Amino acid sequence: MTESNDAPTSGPRPVRAPVGTALTCDNWQTEAAYRMLQNNLDPDVAEAPDQLVVYGGTGKAARDWPSFDALLRTLTTLKADETMLVQSGRPVGVMQTHEWAPRVLLANSNLVGDWATWPEFRRLEQLGLMMYGQMTAGSWIYIGTQGILQGTYETFAAVAEKRFGGTLAGTLTLTAGCGGMGGAQPLAVTMNGGACLIIDVDPVRLRRRVETRYLDVVAADLDEAVKLAVDARTAKKALSVGVVGNAAVLVPKLLRMGVPIDIVTDQTSAHDPLAYLPDGIDLPDAPDYAARKPEEFTDRSRQAMAKHVEAMVGFMDAGAEVFDYGNSIRGEAKLGGYDRAFDFPGFVPAYIRPLFCEGKGPFRWAALSGDPSDIHKTDKAILDLFPENESLARWIKLAGERVAFQGLPARICWLGYGERDKAGERFNEMVADGTLKAPLVIGRDHLDCGSVASPYRETESMLDGSDAIADWPLLNAMVNVASGASWVSIHHGGGVGMGRSIHAGQVTVADGTALAAQKIQRVLTNDPGMGVIRHVDAGYERAEQVAAETGVRVPMREG
Amino acid sequence: MTESNDAPTSGPRPVRAPVGTALTCDNWQTEAAYRMLQNNLDPDVAEAPDQLVVYGGTGKAARDWPSFDALLRTLTTLKADETMLVQSGRPVGVMQTHEWAPRVLLANSNLVGDWATWPEFRRLEQLGLMMYGQMTAGSWIYIGTQGILQGTYETFAAVAEKRFGGTLAGTLTLTAGCGGMGGAQPLAVTMNGGACLIIDVDPVRLRRRVETRYLDVVAADLDEAVKLAVDARTAKKALSVGVVGNAAVLVPKLLRMGVPIDIVTDQTSAHDPLAYLPDGIDLPDAPDYAARKPEEFTDRSRQAMAKHVEAMVGFMDAGAEVFDYGNSIRGEAKLGGYDRAFDFPGFVPAYIRPLFCEGKGPFRWAALSGDPSDIHKTDKAILDLFPENESLARWIKLAGERVAFQGLPARICWLGYGERDKAGERFNEMVADGTLKAPLVIGRDHLDCGSVASPYRETESMLDGSDAIADWPLLNAMVNVASGASWVSIHHGGGVGMGRSIHAGQVTVADGTALAAQKIQRVLTNDPGMGVIRHVDAGYERAEQVAAETGVRVPMREG
Ligand SMILES: NC(=O)c1ccc[n+]([C@@H]2O[C@H](COP(=O)([O-])OP(=O)(O)OC[C@H]3O[C@@H](n4cnc5c(N)ncnc54)[C@H](O)[C@@H]3O)[C@@H](O)[C@H]2O)c1
Ligand SMILES: NC(=O)c1ccc[n+]([C@@H]2O[C@H](COP(=O)([O-])OP(=O)(O)OC[C@H]3O[C@@H](n4cnc5c(N)ncnc54)[C@H](O)[C@@H]3O)[C@@H](O)[C@H]2O)c1
Repeated sequence: MTESNDAPTSGPRPVRAPVGTALTCDNWQTEAAYRMLQNNLDPDVAEAPDQLVVYGGTGKAARDWPSFDALLRTLTTLKADETMLVQSGRPVGVMQTHEWAPRVLLANSNLVGDWATWPEFRRLEQLGLMMYGQMTAGSWIYIGTQGILQGTYETFAAVAEKRFGGTLAGTLTLTAGCGGMGGAQPLAVTMNGGACLIIDVDPVRLRRRVETRYLDVVAADLDEAVKLAVDARTAKKALSVGVVGNAAVLVPKLLRMGVPIDIVTDQTSAHDPLAYLPDGIDLPDAPDYAARKPEEFTDRSRQAMAKHVEAMVGFMDAGAEVFDYGNSIRGEAKLGGYDRAFDFPGFVPAYIRPLFCEGKGPFRWAALSGDPSDIHKTDKAILDLFPENESLARWIKLAGERVAFQGLPARICWLGYGERDKAGERFNEMVADGTLKAPLVIGRDHLDCGSVASPYRETESMLDGSDAIADWPLLNAMVNVASGASWVSIHHGGGVGMGRSIHAGQVTVADGTALAAQKIQRVLTNDPGMGVIRHVDAGYERAEQVAAETGVRVPMREG
Repeated sequence: MTESNDAPTSGPRPVRAPVGTALTCDNWQTEAAYRMLQNNLDPDVAEAPDQLVVYGGTGKAARDWPSFDALLRTLTTLKADETMLVQSGRPVGVMQTHEWAPRVLLANSNLVGDWATWPEFRRLEQLGLMMYGQMTAGSWIYIGTQGILQGTYETFAAVAEKRFGGTLAGTLTLTAGCGGMGGAQPLAVTMNGGACLIIDVDPVRLRRRVETRYLDVVAADLDEAVKLAVDARTAKKALSVGVVGNAAVLVPKLLRMGVPIDIVTDQTSAHDPLAYLPDGIDLPDAPDYAARKPEEFTDRSRQAMAKHVEAMVGFMDAGAEVFDYGNSIRGEAKLGGYDRAFDFPGFVPAYIRPLFCEGKGPFRWAALSGDPSDIHKTDKAILDLFPENESLARWIKLAGERVAFQGLPARICWLGYGERDKAGERFNEMVADGTLKAPLVIGRDHLDCGSVASPYRETESMLDGSDAIADWPLLNAMVNVASGASWVSIHHGGGVGMGRSIHAGQVTVADGTALAAQKIQRVLTNDPGMGVIRHVDAGYERAEQVAAETGVRVPMREG
């Protein structure tokens, strides 16, 4: 649809979520969407708010500024039995549903299989017909770098457990990419006691992580960076060091230099070859070059990734623990002509799948009051609810001390089947009895146990070979709609890029009502329940145990 | 998941839906699914019930017989606030939802984009992990050949309108493929007054259509067929003639013979190159050959389609009205090396899209009583409700006279936005007041105005170039879940094959309750409403008019 002429013109401006208890919308369910959409674009949260870009390359919260305005406007008109439909970041309809139904339904970046490519997506994006939703950008539940921090913390903890006796003290981790997601890496490594050297082409990104206390220091040059990092390793000190440079150049160089590196990974924006900077191009020239000659840029970018990944394999051959951190760099390096790209595993089969079998995943919540004390109270509630879970307690404590809030105060922790509903119901009680100043939203990343099909990441190397089956995320979305979530989204291409993933998200508002309690109980049981049945179906024993212990029904085992 | 050993062994057997008013399940919502699943496999309905194949090549209702048994068993245990999850024809979960939620959610044949190919699908199918759901096969609302008859009737009526002064009398239509869908063609042509020559390699298929009165006569050979058909054309008589043979041979031959043919189309199972019989292979040898050498078979099949389509273009060049009837034969012929394959249009942009702009599509219902008189009463109700609609009246009258019921008595007619909800509410009243003997199910094909992305068929040549955007069918599925449909499905690859379509379906049960009335009102408003907003968004004026006249909200036009 072309813009109607009478729509008010609008454009880039600083956006922040309203806070406090006064409602702009009809009720808290829609008010929550109204606030979280704006929170996603808060200058303290989003990577490039003027372009409506939240994180992850070009992951956006709304298609364009007129769509953003229309989203807010429509939310303020929405009644408690109406539902707004959002197609790739633009509101396209309002329909009468009922009070158990979600208030917003979103579908972002979805393309029919044979057309699920970056060139077709970009053609449609340029026509103004689509946007890239990434995972939590287009589904309005990005909460800043903390969102990924817990997952990254869990992953490095699993690495420590597997190879280094439970701690990273005395190890050096090499990685690159210090953006919205990747910026969590240095803090996650130091929280696990290790030293970390992180490369980014963009000095602004590195400095920003220092400001938000995710990164300890930016070195003047590579030599200084290596010295600081190796000294910390030797002294078994937790320290993170940033260095400006191109990973396609510096990673091979560090390999040649023989720097004692124990763990190698990467979170540059490799999922999109136009977002990864090839060597030999200056950062300021990249956007223009990529726009003018996307194919040439793509070729050069894939060749650079081939060099980058070849060096990662070199570290692996030398004995380091090496893994792909979910940005599709192996796939792109392979397209760039490097044959051994898939020699090292993705992080999910290596470290995360055992958690998925228990329905565990990135449970998160944000305080609509805007008051940090609401989150501190929920932190305490979590500790009270799960006293036996030590690593959870350690995380909540460290997070309270070291995580700076961005935008609305929020918290994340990984909880499993039988835990999320408990936490959600407790939170709703705390809203109801006035312990908290205002309602909470409860959501999660699309990277979850039962909500994604992504053969290079979350569903890589499934036991039964079912990596590419996308029925599961679609069932996940539908069952969340059917369970009373406040908004539900289905996206394509998050994390690993076009053609490589389909995934779903849900957010449920704890507004303290009895109805919300019922919805929360269902959504936060069924949503992780999808993870359990998905892994039972694939033949994972741990998932079978969990299903048996918790009474999750598996129809093929009955009768 | 591998079969558990204690599951009762089961296998092919004749299946028929129970009829009457005694419930096997807990309530009519689940009873309806229980009956419709079985109805899909009724020997009078399904093309190959022993293989669980309903129609459309290998479109199945359940993955395998143990899954079929588990589906029925699970439905009998389902409570009024529970939902069964079905992944590619196998029940994988039962979750607590609420009474407004669907009782069944299905996702069939969905694959992540880069893996959305026949070879990957077949690999997964052979592992027992997937099935092909086509459109209404895997979503349990196939009602036999009548299902497509109305669409085919509408299409040929539009052809008559466009080129032949409103009637096909005095014209000869050439087509091929007399299977589950294609079998509707001869009757649709004669209902429009024309002569029809239809080719099928399988004599059994042709004879079956004669038995069910869809085809008038099967000729002994091509010469007799041509004589009968051309004589009927000359005499302006309605007559349909079947002939046994391979379309890749006979269509070119008829072109060379200079037979006076006015309209050419095709409904062989071209969407799946392993289901289209290449020339030079005997029908009985095909399954074994295709299984042993799928790639060689695919090559030969595409080459045969290239010859077939080349002849169709030849007829077009000679002045005939030629169109692709939604089986992807142009795409396959192109892969087979024929460059002009896309010279003739698909039937949707040519004839159907104007209807889609009004939210029109294949509305259908079936009588769970099993009693034909229930359908006759609904026929009358439709005539009473829409007295001003002449073509609808003509269809209902002809259908009552000429359509033989298959399985549960059922009816189809195309209704638009503002009409479907009216019909649905009237039907529910007729159940409530005892006019009908038992509840009805109300559903539709996935080929509908706002439920499908399929760039070679339903969304071919959209005005704004948005053919491949798949957000719409996903929003359609979610809004139907949110509106109270009884079961909702999301499929991939229906009609046109893997990688080429994503689509959604809904079925809603009119059980006579007040709650059902509310659900019906919402679902049958919102479901066609998706068609209106999808076409408004793409810039179709007719859709904009309809939205304006009926008050469909378009957020980007407000404020
Ligand atoms: N593992 C996970 O759970 C997970 C989750 C979401 C996203 N991801 C993926 O991780 C990647 C990073 O996400 P993000 O949100 O941080 O993206 P981002 O766009 O915010 O940051 C990417 C960073 O990479 C840097 N970069 C680009 N090319 C470089 C090069 N050649 N050398 C050095 N630095 C370079 C950029 O300057 C930028 O700072 C994406 O591919 C994303 O899809 C992973
Ligand atoms: N237009 C629509 O609305 C619509 C809807 C659904 C499906 N379709 C498509 O229409 C096609 C037919 O569907 P169906 O349900 O009838 O399939 P079907 O498998 O029941 O029947 C296909 C028929 O084609 C015949 N056939 C195969 N190869 C042949 C050849 N070379 N020459 C002559 N006959 C040959 C087979 O013998 C069979 O009778 C499929 O591709 C389907 O996807 C179209």
